[in-house]
Amino acid sequence: MKTALYQTLDNKLPSMVKVRRHLHMHPELSFHETKTAAFIAQWYETLGIPYRANVGGNGIVATIKGELPGKTVALRADFDALPIQDEKKAPYSSVTDGVCHACGHDGHTSTLLHVAESFWLHKAQLQGTIVLIHQHAEELHPGGAQSMIDDGCLEGVDMIFGTHLWSLTPTGTVQYVSGPMMAAADKLDIVVQGKGGHGAQPHHAKDAIVAASQLVLQLQTVVSRNIDPLEAAVLSIGSFEARNPFNVIADRVTMSGTVRTFQPTVRNAVEEATKRICDGVARSANVHIDLTYLRSYPAVVNHDVATTYVKKAAEKVPEVTHTEQMVPVMPAEDFAYYLEHVEGAFFFTGAQPDNVDEPFPHHHPRFDFNEKALLIAAKTLTGAALDYLSTHAVK
Amino acid sequence: MKTALYQTLDNKLPSMVKVRRHLHMHPELSFHETKTAAFIAQWYETLGIPYRANVGGNGIVATIKGELPGKTVALRADFDALPIQDEKKAPYSSVTDGVCHACGHDGHTSTLLHVAESFWLHKAQLQGTIVLIHQHAEELHPGGAQSMIDDGCLEGVDMIFGTHLWSLTPTGTVQYVSGPMMAAADKLDIVVQGKGGHGAQPHHAKDAIVAASQLVLQLQTVVSRNIDPLEAAVLSIGSFEARNPFNVIADRVTMSGTVRTFQPTVRNAVEEATKRICDGVARSANVHIDLTYLRSYPAVVNHDVATTYVKKAAEKVPEVTHTEQMVPVMPAEDFAYYLEHVEGAFFFTGAQPDNVDEPFPHHHPRFDFNEKALLIAAKTLTGAALDYLSTHAVK
Amino acid sequence: MKTALYQTLDNKLPSMVKVRRHLHMHPELSFHETKTAAFIAQWYETLGIPYRANVGGNGIVATIKGELPGKTVALRADFDALPIQDEKKAPYSSVTDGVCHACGHDGHTSTLLHVAESFWLHKAQLQGTIVLIHQHAEELHPGGAQSMIDDGCLEGVDMIFGTHLWSLTPTGTVQYVSGPMMAAADKLDIVVQGKGGHGAQPHHAKDAIVAASQLVLQLQTVVSRNIDPLEAAVLSIGSFEARNPFNVIADRVTMSGTVRTFQPTVRNAVEEATKRICDGVARSANVHIDLTYLRSYPAVVNHDVATTYVKKAAEKVPEVTHTEQMVPVMPAEDFAYYLEHVEGAFFFTGAQPDNVDEPFPHHHPRFDFNEKALLIAAKTLTGAALDYLSTHAVK
Amino acid sequence: MKTALYQTLDNKLPSMVKVRRHLHMHPELSFHETKTAAFIAQWYETLGIPYRANVGGNGIVATIKGELPGKTVALRADFDALPIQDEKKAPYSSVTDGVCHACGHDGHTSTLLHVAESFWLHKAQLQGTIVLIHQHAEELHPGGAQSMIDDGCLEGVDMIFGTHLWSLTPTGTVQYVSGPMMAAADKLDIVVQGKGGHGAQPHHAKDAIVAASQLVLQLQTVVSRNIDPLEAAVLSIGSFEARNPFNVIADRVTMSGTVRTFQPTVRNAVEEATKRICDGVARSANVHIDLTYLRSYPAVVNHDVATTYVKKAAEKVPEVTHTEQMVPVMPAEDFAYYLEHVEGAFFFTGAQPDNVDEPFPHHHPRFDFNEKALLIAAKTLTGAALDYLSTHAVK
Repeated sequence: MKTALYQTLDNKLPSMVKVRRHLHMHPELSFHETKTAAFIAQWYETLGIPYRANVGGNGIVATIKGELPGKTVALRADFDALPIQDEKKAPYSSVTDGVCHACGHDGHTSTLLHVAESFWLHKAQLQGTIVLIHQHAEELHPGGAQSMIDDGCLEGVDMIFGTHLWSLTPTGTVQYVSGPMMAAADKLDIVVQGKGGHGAQPHHAKDAIVAASQLVLQLQTVVSRNIDPLEAAVLSIGSFEARNPFNVIADRVTMSGTVRTFQPTVRNAVEEATKRICDGVARSANVHIDLTYLRSYPAVVNHDVATTYVKKAAEKVPEVTHTEQMVPVMPAEDFAYYLEHVEGAFFFTGAQPDNVDEPFPHHHPRFDFNEKALLIAAKTLTGAALDYLSTHAVK
Repeated sequence: MKTALYQTLDNKLPSMVKVRRHLHMHPELSFHETKTAAFIAQWYETLGIPYRANVGGNGIVATIKGELPGKTVALRADFDALPIQDEKKAPYSSVTDGVCHACGHDGHTSTLLHVAESFWLHKAQLQGTIVLIHQHAEELHPGGAQSMIDDGCLEGVDMIFGTHLWSLTPTGTVQYVSGPMMAAADKLDIVVQGKGGHGAQPHHAKDAIVAASQLVLQLQTVVSRNIDPLEAAVLSIGSFEARNPFNVIADRVTMSGTVRTFQPTVRNAVEEATKRICDGVARSANVHIDLTYLRSYPAVVNHDVATTYVKKAAEKVPEVTHTEQMVPVMPAEDFAYYLEHVEGAFFFTGAQPDNVDEPFPHHHPRFDFNEKALLIAAKTLTGAALDYLSTHAVK
Repeated sequence: MKTALYQTLDNKLPSMVKVRRHLHMHPELSFHETKTAAFIAQWYETLGIPYRANVGGNGIVATIKGELPGKTVALRADFDALPIQDEKKAPYSSVTDGVCHACGHDGHTSTLLHVAESFWLHKAQLQGTIVLIHQHAEELHPGGAQSMIDDGCLEGVDMIFGTHLWSLTPTGTVQYVSGPMMAAADKLDIVVQGKGGHGAQPHHAKDAIVAASQLVLQLQTVVSRNIDPLEAAVLSIGSFEARNPFNVIADRVTMSGTVRTFQPTVRNAVEEATKRICDGVARSANVHIDLTYLRSYPAVVNHDVATTYVKKAAEKVPEVTHTEQMVPVMPAEDFAYYLEHVEGAFFFTGAQPDNVDEPFPHHHPRFDFNEKALLIAAKTLTGAALDYLSTHAVK
Repeated sequence: MKTALYQTLDNKLPSMVKVRRHLHMHPELSFHETKTAAFIAQWYETLGIPYRANVGGNGIVATIKGELPGKTVALRADFDALPIQDEKKAPYSSVTDGVCHACGHDGHTSTLLHVAESFWLHKAQLQGTIVLIHQHAEELHPGGAQSMIDDGCLEGVDMIFGTHLWSLTPTGTVQYVSGPMMAAADKLDIVVQGKGGHGAQPHHAKDAIVAASQLVLQLQTVVSRNIDPLEAAVLSIGSFEARNPFNVIADRVTMSGTVRTFQPTVRNAVEEATKRICDGVARSANVHIDLTYLRSYPAVVNHDVATTYVKKAAEKVPEVTHTEQMVPVMPAEDFAYYLEHVEGAFFFTGAQPDNVDEPFPHHHPRFDFNEKALLIAAKTLTGAALDYLSTHAVK
């Protein structure tokens, strides 16, 4: 059956590219992806595949029940774009000012639509059920995954797979790893409230800039002293604002920053140390410090067995020239939430453009990916799902 | 002769108030005081007192040669206003949006115009010469004093006096001090240039916020470790700006601050230490730090003998109820420049409004002063000048 | 009468020098000055002057009642030495290893003994009473002054004078100042208790060195941010100890330091800020910090009227070539306690050795002073006392 | 043949324990292990196995040429002890005060001696050569490995294996990992030279404690800002000494610390950042900073193929109940040097004492290990060597 599905996908490649380019030209921001959602719904409507719209927001969930009994596998693709101006020159560049599919979600969506079509054509031989999760709002906290889960998208699902096209990895390579793969990402918002005053009379003021500077330096000790050196963690303060006349002591500083970790214990340790340091500096500098520690996506932690399905499926995809265990990366993904509910695995599908030595990274205004990778992503997802279903086929 | 002059001044009080209120309603910003200058020139024109306009900018210098030979005394008043919205409710509130005589220079000017008129009326008995220096642009670096000196306003002058109406000191009090009285004020502008990057990849960036925080803390050691504890010095960073997305490492911080000192050696030590610390932090944090250390007005350092003239003259002004030696204050004054060229003294004329316990400080949007103080200022300036001239009268 | 007393003192100069040198050869440490006390007691015993021994410890108080009625003036001299090796070459160098009169108390004592003898000889004309306070233990906290006061040495005293021979001021000069003259001195003892551990596993430890370093830097803000720049204050950490193998994280740091101030409000502000910063750093660095803030001598604050007696008396001493108002100095003196109970004044008697450009400072192993200053100290103390008594003579 | 060797080792277990206990009772410090070396030499002498003594110091190298041709495998054991007081109660406790085999090198040595004996007995079937490297001085920089290599101990060697008995891992477990396994360890020695002075006069001094505190805090940014968060690195300052009277500003601070890393690029980055920060703080704090950055052992980086030999051999040792890939650890080992010259692998042989939940860690005064592990270590080393030789046997 896999051979038949792969042949169908081979035939669909021109359509995959066409759909991807259409989506690329019409990107929509997270939580505002109504036209994209309508496009996806129309796809299923046309094919006659049952689907549910407005799942947990703009999400769409389609279901293909095979004619043979078996387990249920979910495949997920996200479809929101970014608030970035498209600066690349291409016939399919974004037509919307300031919005761009600079992360490849257009490719994820086109891939999944054609994977669905292919399974639908072959549903007579399908030993179980395929659930297609089209998720909105991956780029923006709190993300769309959790609300789609709350709205039932994982009901009856036994295993889930997902992939990210990755422009920094050569096309032909598939990267997988069991355990932590992408970081948990948290956001810090800090307000240091002192008391303003004349620059020549510090004793009547409470200098918020001095207090905030102490805070920045003590926060360096979170990573240097409070975390196991064998674990990964980073805490960066990205913004520090106190705009005043030069001869006035600042009454207030507003700061924000990011934290990335892989292990829940490390994440807890960073949060605890950050709170403790804010408390301590507030006391020592005699100011008030208000910390908002927002836990955004948890780490993507792949399950062992599911990762093996990905690895083995990838090895048999004809267009895959190389598979490798990857080192975890610092970006975050709300695919993490699905993995907290069902077994599954996320993987990277190499998508480096041809003839490019230093591809533009994700979120860059000139980001693009190699469309050949659409087929690889489609076949690896299809293969992993099929292998799982056939292994667990009801006999 | 002093009795005669004081009587004239007594009679002129209503006019002093009227002129002051006129100026108060029509304030002009530093270096843009053309209408105020024209008003002053017209005053001398009308009285027939010789004067020179456009001295070093918008300055006016009038000269009253007594009919008896003697020394030359200069009296100085400044006439610019501040970029502050007048928020007090008074019939003479500023009619110009965002500009206000919130520091009393209107009073200084009205006082000096009437002191001039009074000397002119009595020039037959005058043993020497009175020079009236109406200075523009005291509030804004580089100030008008230096350019007026460069344009000759002190030529032939033997001694100079000046006063500031001081709303925080009770009306009836005159404050003087020999030696340092008002601080030297310098301005720091600092740009910390690092290298931006993703918040999760600090090793590819040079974190400008961490570097600038180190700078702020090390600058605390300028006062705590580099300056004689028996000398006064203050260094305050008032502004610290690095506005970025929370998950981006800042490439640049812009900071500004103020330094106040009284002794040239201390001023030099602060500047030297600040430069050294900027250099060192640039090295240790691997960033570029650009420091602009702008020396603004030097300290006002009164001369002994001149201060004694002020003290003794004030003690004999009928409306003065109290004279006292003051402790130096941190605000700066470009009267300092005159004292680098000729002997002289600056003093405070108490001008606290009646029935007010906590008067608004200078530069406050609701600042006002007690108009009774105009007469005290006029008589003390007049008395000090007369005493000096009569002491050195040619016999 | 002053003339007679001065003449007596002139005659006693060789004896003053002899006694001073004897004391210099036989120095005793603070609270262990038994032989010195016996020498002083023997002096009074021999002359027949009534005295009390063991006052508040090793102190001696002698009383000379004049035959004419009047007020009571106390004169004070301290007599302890320092734990310093005498390194100067002189016939009168210390014969005791490691102990030295390196601060001039030998001179103070010899002066006072001869002043007493002189008053005793002329007690027939004395209009009141002279109390001679020979104080032990000035160099070491808690000092001898407070215990002598507790033991009644100031009973009936109306005014007190004292002086310090000062090797850094030219001989012939007397320095006085009304108000703060010498600093209050406090001592900090700090223990930072963290938790030790392997240098490669900071997350299992609480690094006491990092915490203590944060403390040192934040303590810089006490002076730079919490104190009026117009007031003097200094806080120095002099000792910081954490001796460990290089690859072990320190569990404990012991630190000590000194604080000097003149104003009680400033002293309070320093103590309060120091406590607050220790609390805050303990919290932020997750360690325990134990601060012992020991208030030692308060500031020497001279009284106005008493200072005037000193100034005027000094101006009339034939050997005095110059008197001047001094700026306050940072060293401390327990003469401060007497001034909390009765009016009085402390002053410096210039004692720079002849033909020396850079005299050794007090507490230096090669410190010495000009013995001519003994006579100046004696006459100024005598003069101030006499002037006070004669002004308040019962008529 | 492996079966025969394992049977011999089984029979030798009592002797292994006996020899281990003898060595345990007579520990010798690094570079002073003459009696231990003599004991080892005597062992080979007695058996008639050719050996070379005094290799690169106290090292011994024995060589067993099999009677069949083949490759050469080296096995290494270290034999020095630690400057620690033996605090455990055991019949075989150290008889030498202050010296103890608190790291298991006694066990390593006994194991290797019996492995040698066993190969010697079966040399008729041996397809190649076994080199026994008894290394002195592993515990103390610069270690004995490099000097033994310089003295030829690896000549002709094709592959090397070594193990460490590990009391924290259950007996029966063997841990291996390809790539980085143990950290590179460097040592920092820092002298901060300022200028002493009176605690009340900081402006005349250069405060070494304040400078050193800045240094400690800025060194926190090495790990927090300069190193890839996905890489392991730690920098700890373990010692900070500035012992002074409380009221004297410190002229000098001496500090020492440790750095641990796995990747040469990370190691270089830490050294570079440390130097840069020392330079910068020296400049900003106006002191002299002398940094000695001593590179001690590099990271132990196992080779892929050799690690597979260990893994497979361990899996077939009857007493091994569990093998696992380990995460790298922070301690250092000079086995690293051998791996820079020939392919090889180091591994941990679990040696947790029976009935102990929290075993004492290595270098603890009460450290001990499970003697059953001697046999496991012996068989795993033997098995890995044999497997390698038989794979590459000359046919």
